[in-house]
Amino acid sequence: MSSPNLRRHPTCIATVCLSGTLPEKLEAAAAAGFDGIEIFENDLLNFDGSPASVRRMAADLGLAIMLYQPFRDFEAMPREQLARNLARAERKFDVMAELGVENVLVCSNVQDIAIDDPSLAAADLRLMAEAAGQRGLRVGYEALAWARHTRYWRQAWQIVKQADHPALGLILDSFHTLSLGDSLEGLGEVPAEKLFFVQFADAPKLSMDVLSWSRHHRNFPGQGDLPVVDFARDLLAAGYTGPLSLEVFNDEFRSAPARLTAQDGIRSLIWLESEAGGAALPAPASLEGVDFLEFAVDAAAGQELQTRLRALGFTYAGHHRSKAVDLYRQGHVNVILNMEQDSAASEHFQLHGPSVCAIGLKVDDASRAMERARALHCHEWRSPVGPRERTIPALRAPDGMLFYLIDDRDADRSIYESDFVLHPHAAADIGSEATGLTSIDHIAQALPAHRLDSFVLFYRTIFGMSGGTVHEIPDPYGLVKSRAVVSPDQRVRVTLNVSESGRTATGRFITAYAGSGIHHVAFRTPRLFETVESIDRAAARMLHVPDNYYDDVAARLGLDDTLIARLQRDGLLYDRDAQGDFLHAYTEPFHERFFFELVQRDGYTGYGMANAAVRMAVQAQLSRNGAAHAE
Amino acid sequence: MSSPNLRRHPTCIATVCLSGTLPEKLEAAAAAGFDGIEIFENDLLNFDGSPASVRRMAADLGLAIMLYQPFRDFEAMPREQLARNLARAERKFDVMAELGVENVLVCSNVQDIAIDDPSLAAADLRLMAEAAGQRGLRVGYEALAWARHTRYWRQAWQIVKQADHPALGLILDSFHTLSLGDSLEGLGEVPAEKLFFVQFADAPKLSMDVLSWSRHHRNFPGQGDLPVVDFARDLLAAGYTGPLSLEVFNDEFRSAPARLTAQDGIRSLIWLESEAGGAALPAPASLEGVDFLEFAVDAAAGQELQTRLRALGFTYAGHHRSKAVDLYRQGHVNVILNMEQDSAASEHFQLHGPSVCAIGLKVDDASRAMERARALHCHEWRSPVGPRERTIPALRAPDGMLFYLIDDRDADRSIYESDFVLHPHAAADIGSEATGLTSIDHIAQALPAHRLDSFVLFYRTIFGMSGGTVHEIPDPYGLVKSRAVVSPDQRVRVTLNVSESGRTATGRFITAYAGSGIHHVAFRTPRLFETVESIDRAAARMLHVPDNYYDDVAARLGLDDTLIARLQRDGLLYDRDAQGDFLHAYTEPFHERFFFELVQRDGYTGYGMANAAVRMAVQAQLSRNGAAHAE
Repeated sequence: MSSPNLRRHPTCIATVCLSGTLPEKLEAAAAAGFDGIEIFENDLLNFDGSPASVRRMAADLGLAIMLYQPFRDFEAMPREQLARNLARAERKFDVMAELGVENVLVCSNVQDIAIDDPSLAAADLRLMAEAAGQRGLRVGYEALAWARHTRYWRQAWQIVKQADHPALGLILDSFHTLSLGDSLEGLGEVPAEKLFFVQFADAPKLSMDVLSWSRHHRNFPGQGDLPVVDFARDLLAAGYTGPLSLEVFNDEFRSAPARLTAQDGIRSLIWLESEAGGAALPAPASLEGVDFLEFAVDAAAGQELQTRLRALGFTYAGHHRSKAVDLYRQGHVNVILNMEQDSAASEHFQLHGPSVCAIGLKVDDASRAMERARALHCHEWRSPVGPRERTIPALRAPDGMLFYLIDDRDADRSIYESDFVLHPHAAADIGSEATGLTSIDHIAQALPAHRLDSFVLFYRTIFGMSGGTVHEIPDPYGLVKSRAVVSPDQRVRVTLNVSESGRTATGRFITAYAGSGIHHVAFRTPRLFETVESIDRAAARMLHVPDNYYDDVAARLGLDDTLIARLQRDGLLYDRDAQGDFLHAYTEPFHERFFFELVQRDGYTGYGMANAAVRMAVQAQLSRNGAAHAE
Repeated sequence: MSSPNLRRHPTCIATVCLSGTLPEKLEAAAAAGFDGIEIFENDLLNFDGSPASVRRMAADLGLAIMLYQPFRDFEAMPREQLARNLARAERKFDVMAELGVENVLVCSNVQDIAIDDPSLAAADLRLMAEAAGQRGLRVGYEALAWARHTRYWRQAWQIVKQADHPALGLILDSFHTLSLGDSLEGLGEVPAEKLFFVQFADAPKLSMDVLSWSRHHRNFPGQGDLPVVDFARDLLAAGYTGPLSLEVFNDEFRSAPARLTAQDGIRSLIWLESEAGGAALPAPASLEGVDFLEFAVDAAAGQELQTRLRALGFTYAGHHRSKAVDLYRQGHVNVILNMEQDSAASEHFQLHGPSVCAIGLKVDDASRAMERARALHCHEWRSPVGPRERTIPALRAPDGMLFYLIDDRDADRSIYESDFVLHPHAAADIGSEATGLTSIDHIAQALPAHRLDSFVLFYRTIFGMSGGTVHEIPDPYGLVKSRAVVSPDQRVRVTLNVSESGRTATGRFITAYAGSGIHHVAFRTPRLFETVESIDRAAARMLHVPDNYYDDVAARLGLDDTLIARLQRDGLLYDRDAQGDFLHAYTEPFHERFFFELVQRDGYTGYGMANAAVRMAVQAQLSRNGAAHAE
């Protein structure tokens, strides 16, 4: 699963990335498959056990202790403090010896009284390195982005170079470098053996002071907006052979289950190394579209959903050869209603109620895609297959939902033909579009607030999708944040929605659904006016749009009265961006859970976020009005 | 309750401050006692009902609609857009007419293409004011802190002055002014009749871009760090007679129950007006200390708590004349164990389990304090009083906890003498300090994450306490934020703790307790070494401190080996600040809920926050180890 000529770098994670007690952190790192850990000093201080016991615990788990950190405010202090600082270092060397760790991270001094004299810093660090070296230890010097004097790695390197001691080297950190807009350009001049250790963190672009940004909002490579891949590429090009380590301070990571965080961490590092030209992963699949959606339902919910689908113009297309599964179809949209007992779907139904339990993605090469997913520690799923049915490779998303990878290259017929007894009219029916719905435009997924980064990483690393800007939408009961992930050619789009408030539509979904799941599905039509006019809007339960909305759209966007009248008559919402227009309409929620959206996208690249607030307000009102409207 | 010569200004709140649907927002504003509301435009757009129905709804609730807002990006646009912008204004005037609102807020243009020409802005606004005036409406122009050109109120005033139209005036906003470090100095030059409307918001000091700061982190006057009182004082001095209105964009307000937010809002405005020299409140009480703590317990928990208290050196001092209530005492610390059936305490016990249900505060003037509290919409509490017992005025905190106000000026004996049958040794026992505990140093209260601002406002407005810096403490399972509120002479100190994570000590408390409550109580001693050595540490369940902690304190603070050895032997923690030293020790949690702390404060002003992380780590480990340790 990696290029034969490239050795994979050891992987490491700082204990500060993970929640819990020190033993829990170590167990999570080991379970995820890391080679080693950095001991963040406070995790040791707060642990009621000796450093020697930590050493044994790590060894028992197969983890190397690769770094002890941080040692602060050492170099270039007023002279009277030097002796005390060296004494402090000796005490920490004692701890390191007991821990069995060779490397300590010294971060550049942040004290106001630190002296602006690189030569003095070099002399001090040489003294510390000499003391360390005598005990077989090594000192790595790292430039903090908010240090008093030494903020850039090149400054740190000049100091290390001047100190010129074999037990002194450089530690690099992607956040400290990239947060200042700097890069590793010029790293080639540093001898590779002087690169003692490298820490990685990404971060979303935020406009705040760099210290707060660093302390609260770092995340794993692939989860943020920094050019971490470029950083890693320059690093590998400079001949670095040491561990790739994660050091992330993040408020959500601090409270999230450590095992989930650690799994994301190892996925992030494997992806990063591959992207940076190190040990390579198989290329991601080319995603050709969402081929089907599978709903887990019982008989009653199945009946109800079927009624809604028929109202939207879907027709019954057949039933599964060996399971209690029906297929509905319009255009290229296949909707599967799974009522099979004792199946993955029935388990899903037990846990979550009626909801989407699987998504079929059309891919160019399912086996390569599965190989990539496995290399990225993604769980494979094998469902029972009946005679004459096709085995469809599948993987589990972090929330347990299944993604089937449909690859028709070597098939003489579609999965619908092989696995279903199709209704006579259905076989040749792919082109039929009763109300004009042609494809799945996007899928919206609601996640618990702290899971956004995890899912962005999943879609980005497994499927090669890329994440857009985070939008904030005011639901009447709190903010909802929405971030889209999109495949390179935009044929698969997923919006990820989170809310800190349990009272928003997203929050209510998470509570009712008991986890993350598909919140709504948008079907695309080339002609939304005609689509809406051809469906039974009452039976389809199309959502009513307040008249005030139209008054404002008219005033705000200067739409002409004829268009406004037609939008209002058909209950459509309107948005536009620099690329084009967007028309859309929503249904009322089904079981207070998911709903459908119908969209017409004429070059427009967004998701009608400007209109999401009015949708949420009307849905909230329906929800308050209770079962009468929302069933 | 207000100065007879000062008329109270009308109070108003923008609908964007409150969560929910528009009807819910209006109901909450009316219930809290506001005179009027600002309609934030999106709240109308998202409402499925006509502006006329909103007008009726407000009228039925006794609310005036005082402002319609905002109208954006109007003035000084390229000329070809002027006609369209005026047409847009006319459409909004139609809505305003239907709403029955006279004033519209025009905020200064943020568009890149806006022209930097105050005269052009004045000419445009004059056109808009002329159109408004013809319909009996008025236009208020407000400088946005992040506008393209007009960012300061003085610029806005120059434009309004130049436009010189009776239907055009100035709108001021404390956030836009103070966030730029500006003030209202010079406002006296503006004729009072040109001050159309004033909006208030406070905010914590945060280093981020002003737009994000404004959109997410504003709060009510008294909850933040901006000099809003100075702003209000300058405003009143300039002769402003219009409404005082609140406009706050805050992520937590968006999700909090609207009624609680509205109650805080009205409290904030009444306080602000008084502080600014308007209609005055009675002065806050002088707080002379915490006189007693009352625990709601059943017989079993009472027995257990009594054992712990005895281990700390408390002695039984008597029982209540008419209730199942016991008094324990040491030094000036009175601890009341309330086991009375069918009482406020038993209700508290039913809701929350064994916990502090009331706090007795020694005050200089209880009736003045109660008058102030009532004027600030605080609920008064009257408990049943037996014969010969003293009636103690009490008020309810926002979480339902009771604060008794003890004022001994006119009493011939203490409440303990009047309400309790004291044990023979207790009457003259005030000075006895079996283990040296003399007083209550501070009380720590855990709050749900979104309630911090509400409680800061409560302590600040009702008791005249002031809020300190927010500290962040890394619990193993997430961050805990802590902010202290302190009385002017530091005799009453309360730390308020919140956590976004449900897995931290604070989060677990909130879940177990089902609300906000007292999380721990710190008793003060002048000699902590002696105190700890005189108590039965096992019976008192003193918390064990890891050895690693002492290694680090020694290295970090350079303490001498003798002191370190003694700290370690006695299980004490050490901190210091510029003012002095701090020694402290914790007990294990009682019923996984609250714990006690013993402190020695030698000039030190803090709360040992530097040591809170190790305490939380050890407590978390105990909690995981289960009932064996934590009872």
